[in-house]
Amino acid sequence: MKVGFIGLGSMGSAMAERLLQAQYDVTVYNRTAARAQALVSQGARHASQIADACRGDAVFTMLADDGALESVVFDEGGILSSLPKGTVHISSSTISAALAERLAVEHQKRGQHFVSAPVFGRPEAAAAGKLFIVAAGAKDALEKCAPLLEAVGQKTFHFGDNPSSANLVKISGNFLIASVIESLSEAFALLGKAGVEQRQFLDFLTSTLFNAPIYKTYGTLIIDKKYTPVGFAAPLGLKDVRLALSAGENLRVPLPLGSLIRDRFLTLLANGGESLDWVAISCVSAESAGQKAA
Amino acid sequence: MKVGFIGLGSMGSAMAERLLQAQYDVTVYNRTAARAQALVSQGARHASQIADACRGDAVFTMLADDGALESVVFDEGGILSSLPKGTVHISSSTISAALAERLAVEHQKRGQHFVSAPVFGRPEAAAAGKLFIVAAGAKDALEKCAPLLEAVGQKTFHFGDNPSSANLVKISGNFLIASVIESLSEAFALLGKAGVEQRQFLDFLTSTLFNAPIYKTYGTLIIDKKYTPVGFAAPLGLKDVRLALSAGENLRVPLPLGSLIRDRFLTLLANGGESLDWVAISCVSAESAGQKAA
Amino acid sequence: MKVGFIGLGSMGSAMAERLLQAQYDVTVYNRTAARAQALVSQGARHASQIADACRGDAVFTMLADDGALESVVFDEGGILSSLPKGTVHISSSTISAALAERLAVEHQKRGQHFVSAPVFGRPEAAAAGKLFIVAAGAKDALEKCAPLLEAVGQKTFHFGDNPSSANLVKISGNFLIASVIESLSEAFALLGKAGVEQRQFLDFLTSTLFNAPIYKTYGTLIIDKKYTPVGFAAPLGLKDVRLALSAGENLRVPLPLGSLIRDRFLTLLANGGESLDWVAISCVSAESAGQKAA
Amino acid sequence: MKVGFIGLGSMGSAMAERLLQAQYDVTVYNRTAARAQALVSQGARHASQIADACRGDAVFTMLADDGALESVVFDEGGILSSLPKGTVHISSSTISAALAERLAVEHQKRGQHFVSAPVFGRPEAAAAGKLFIVAAGAKDALEKCAPLLEAVGQKTFHFGDNPSSANLVKISGNFLIASVIESLSEAFALLGKAGVEQRQFLDFLTSTLFNAPIYKTYGTLIIDKKYTPVGFAAPLGLKDVRLALSAGENLRVPLPLGSLIRDRFLTLLANGGESLDWVAISCVSAESAGQKAA
Repeated sequence: MKVGFIGLGSMGSAMAERLLQAQYDVTVYNRTAARAQALVSQGARHASQIADACRGDAVFTMLADDGALESVVFDEGGILSSLPKGTVHISSSTISAALAERLAVEHQKRGQHFVSAPVFGRPEAAAAGKLFIVAAGAKDALEKCAPLLEAVGQKTFHFGDNPSSANLVKISGNFLIASVIESLSEAFALLGKAGVEQRQFLDFLTSTLFNAPIYKTYGTLIIDKKYTPVGFAAPLGLKDVRLALSAGENLRVPLPLGSLIRDRFLTLLANGGESLDWVAISCVSAESAGQKAA
Repeated sequence: MKVGFIGLGSMGSAMAERLLQAQYDVTVYNRTAARAQALVSQGARHASQIADACRGDAVFTMLADDGALESVVFDEGGILSSLPKGTVHISSSTISAALAERLAVEHQKRGQHFVSAPVFGRPEAAAAGKLFIVAAGAKDALEKCAPLLEAVGQKTFHFGDNPSSANLVKISGNFLIASVIESLSEAFALLGKAGVEQRQFLDFLTSTLFNAPIYKTYGTLIIDKKYTPVGFAAPLGLKDVRLALSAGENLRVPLPLGSLIRDRFLTLLANGGESLDWVAISCVSAESAGQKAA
Repeated sequence: MKVGFIGLGSMGSAMAERLLQAQYDVTVYNRTAARAQALVSQGARHASQIADACRGDAVFTMLADDGALESVVFDEGGILSSLPKGTVHISSSTISAALAERLAVEHQKRGQHFVSAPVFGRPEAAAAGKLFIVAAGAKDALEKCAPLLEAVGQKTFHFGDNPSSANLVKISGNFLIASVIESLSEAFALLGKAGVEQRQFLDFLTSTLFNAPIYKTYGTLIIDKKYTPVGFAAPLGLKDVRLALSAGENLRVPLPLGSLIRDRFLTLLANGGESLDWVAISCVSAESAGQKAA
Repeated sequence: MKVGFIGLGSMGSAMAERLLQAQYDVTVYNRTAARAQALVSQGARHASQIADACRGDAVFTMLADDGALESVVFDEGGILSSLPKGTVHISSSTISAALAERLAVEHQKRGQHFVSAPVFGRPEAAAAGKLFIVAAGAKDALEKCAPLLEAVGQKTFHFGDNPSSANLVKISGNFLIASVIESLSEAFALLGKAGVEQRQFLDFLTSTLFNAPIYKTYGTLIIDKKYTPVGFAAPLGLKDVRLALSAGENLRVPLPLGSLIRDRFLTLLANGGESLDWVAISCVSAESAGQKAA
C-alpha cells in the first residue's frame, strides 16, 4: 500500500515515521523541503510537489490550521486536482468543522474519499505510536484506512460517517483539557494565596477523585510554572478554543467557559506569552490574584 | 475512647455508624431527635441536649452550613460552653474558611482543640467507610483524632496546622467537580446539537485522557439527564460555589469560572431545579443551546 | 420638627448640614465624636450616645455598610430600643435589601416607622443640595419625611411602600454606573491598542447617542487615568456589586455582568488598588490587553 | 458631482435618496434590481452592473457584511477593476477592521482612494438626514467626500487617516449600545423579580444620571418586550459583537463583556429569536431568572 504524507511538522514527521516503520511505501511532502530529509534517510520518497504525494492509495495531511490545509487542497496543483478517484484524503489536522464539511463535499464531487482523523497526544506520543485517533467518514473509506491508522496510533475511536464529527470531537477534547487547566489555575490561585500547600492538594486530587493523567500532568506544570519547553503553544491553544467557539456560533451553542478561556489566552498573548506553552494561561489567574508568576 | 456526634443527616448518620462499628462509645445528638433512633438501636447513647454529646474525648459535628454550625457551637448550652478543656471538636461540615478561623480562635481561648476534617464522598461511600478525609489542625490534636478519622474514612490527607486549610481544600475540590460538570455540559451541548454521539464521546474521554471516575460518573448522569435521585442537591452546589467565591473575595482572588458556575446554579434554581441533583446545571447549557432537557 | 442624624462621614455631614440650613433642630451622633464638631458650630446639638439622637420626630442614619447599621440599630442602647413609637427611622445608607426587610419588620413590631431613602450623588452634590433621593416606605411615613428629604436633595423619587425597593433601586443604579465604566474600559482598551484617538471617540459618544453626564464624567476619568482623588472608593464599589449579586442570589436572578464587574474589582484590589477610585477597574481591561496603566 | 451607490437595503436606499435630494447625479446598483425602482423614479440612473455605478467621482457601498462587500469589490467586474484612478470608494457598511485595512491597501495599489464612513442611526434617521457619520481616510479624499457626507448625515466625525479607525469606532459604538441593553436587562430582571416597578426605575434613571436617548429608547423597548418590528435584527447584533471580538482577537484585547453579549445573542438565536430586534437579548436575562418573556 502506497501512501503520501503532507505536512512534516513535529507531529507529522513522527506520524510519517510510524508509517515507514510499518513498512508502508511513503512519499512525503513539505513546503520547506529540508524537513523531509530525516524521513528520506529512513526510506521515504521525497515529493517535490504536492501532486507527487497524491499518487498512492491515500494521502495524509497534518497542517497548522484551516488556511494551510485549504491552500494544500484547493490551490492549483493541490490535492483536489491531483488525487485519483477512489483514493482517500486522511486529514489529521485540527481544523474547523466547517472546513471538514466543505472538504467532504468537494472530494465527493470528484469521486475521492475524505476521512477526518485528528489525533490526541504530543509529538513524543506520536513517535512512540501512542496517539489516540478519532476518525469519521464513509464506512468503506474508514475500513481502507484502518491499517494505516493502526500503524500510526495506539487506538482508533470511530464517530460515524460524517467526517466533521471527528473534528468536533478533537475540538471538544481540547476544550476540556483547557477547562482542566483553567479550573486548576483558579483553585491553585485561591489555595496559594491562602497559604495551603498546592502540591499536597494536587497529590490529594490525583490519588482520589481526579486520578487522570491530565490532572497530574497539568497540575504539576502549573505548580512548577513550567511554561517552556513548549509542548503545545499558547497561540495554538487560542486557535483551538476559537474553533470551538466558531463551531458553537454556527450551531447556535453558547460556550461561556470557552469564552472565558479565550479571554485567558488573549490576556496571556497580550502580555508576552506568544512563545509559551498553553498551560501558561494559569499565570493569568495568579496575576489577577496579585501573585506574580515566575 | 468516648466520642460525641452532632448532626445526623445522611452523611452524619453513616459516619457515626462507622464509629460504632469500630467499637467506640458514641453519644449522638440531633435537633430532630427521631433521627437518632437507628443509631441508638445499634448501640449509640442518645443525648437530649448538645452538652450531653460533649462529655467525651472528642465531638464530631456534621451540619448543613455555617448557620447551623454557629448555632450548635455558639448558642447557650452549645459546644463552646460544654466541651471540657483538652478535648477536641472535629468539624466535618462544609463551612466557610472564615468560620473555621473563628472556631479555631474561640476554641483555643477556652483550652479546647479544633480540627477541621471535611470529607469527600456520598452517603453510600460514608456507610462503606470509603470517604476521603482532609484534615488540618494542631499536630497533637490531629494525632489524637487519627484513629477516629481512620474508623470513618478510607484515607486521611493532612493539610497542616491551620484548620481552615482543610476547609479550603474541601471547597476547592467541590469547585473542581462543578467545573467538570460545567465543561462536560458545554461540550455535550455542542456535540449533541451537531449530532455527534455523546456516549461515544464519553467512552473515548474516559478510556483515554480523562479516565477518572469523576468524568465517568458525571458524564453518564449528564447524558442520561439523571437529575434524581439527588446525590448532592443543587442548592448545596450553589452554597459550595458561594463558599469558594466568598473565600476568594476575602483573599482578593477572582474566580471567574466560579462566577460562571454560580450563575448556572441560579438559573437552574430560578427555573424549578431546587430539588434536583447539582448535575442538573447541565440542562442550563443544553437549554441555552435550544435543546430542551427531559 | 426635631431630627437626629447618625453617621457623620462626608456624605452624612453634608446631608445634616442641609437640614441645619433648612432650620431644622438637628441632633447629631457619630461614633468618633470629633466629626460632629463642625456641625455643632453650625448649630447642631451633640448627642453623646445614640439614644440622644432618637428623641425627635425622625432619625436619619448614613453608615458605611450593613454591619455598621446593624450595630447602631440592634445593639444595646441602639435605635430600636430608643426610638419613640410613631417616629421614623430614615435609612440613607447603601445596604442590602435583606437588611432593609429585617429593619422594616423590627421597627413595625415596636410601632416605629421605617423609610429607606438612599441617595445618588457625591459629597459635593450633597453639600449643594443636588442629591437625588429614592425613597420607599409606608405612605404616611413617607409624607412625614417629605419636607426633610426635600431639604436634603434636589428631587425625591418614590418606589412604593416596601422600603427594600428603594435599596434595590440604589443597588441597581450603582450596578448600571459600574457597567458604564466596564463597557467604556473595554472599548477604550480596544481603540487605544488600535491607535484610535480615545478622546475623539468620547467626544463623538457624548455629543450623539450617549450624551449623559455619566459617560462624560467616567469616560474622561478613564482616559486621564485619574484614579485619585477618590470620589467613590474601589472597596465600596466591590461592596455595592456584592449587594447586587447577593440580592440576585436571594431572588434567584443571575447577573453575569455583575459577576464580571465583581471580578474586575477583585483583580484591582489584589493588585494594589484598595485606595483608588472605583473607576480604576478600567486599568484591569487595559492591563489584560498588555497596556500598562499610569 | 457624479456619484454611484451600491447596496439598496433600507439604509442604503435612504442614504441614496438624501444624495438625490441634494441634487447629486446618482447612479444606483443593487443585486436585486427591483430595489432600485423607487430611487429611479426620483431621478436616479440605474446601473445594470457594478461597473456602471463606478463611473463618477465617488461610489458609496452599503452592504450587509464582509462577504457581500468583498464580492462587490473583488469579484470580476467589481469596484476594484472598475473605479477610475483618483476617485473614491466610500464604504458605509459595518465591516471588520481587517477588511477595511485590506481595502485601503488594494485601492491604493490602483491609485484609487478609500474612505471608511460607517453611520449611526436607524433607517428613519437616515431618511431624515439625521445619521451620524464617522469617517476616516486620507485627508484629501475626506475633503472630497465632505459635501457628500454632509448631504447624507447631520454631522460627520473624523478619526484620522487610517480608514479602519472609523470601522473600529462603529464597532465599539455598537458594542456600547449592546452593553446598555445587557446592563438594563440584568437590572430589570432583578427589580422585576423583586416587584419593583420597572417603569418608575427607568423614569428615575433617564431623568437623572442616565438621561441619554439610548437609555430611554432601549429601556422602554425592554420593559414593553417590544421585539418587533425589527429596527436592528438580532443576527446583525451577533455579527457586530463578533466584529468587536474579532478585532480584539487580532489586537490581543480581551473583551469579556463582549463575550458575554455574544453568548446572549447565541442563546436568543438558539431559542427562536432569529427574526427579532436585538433588544430581545433582554429576554435571556429574564428567562434565566425564571421570568418567562411575552
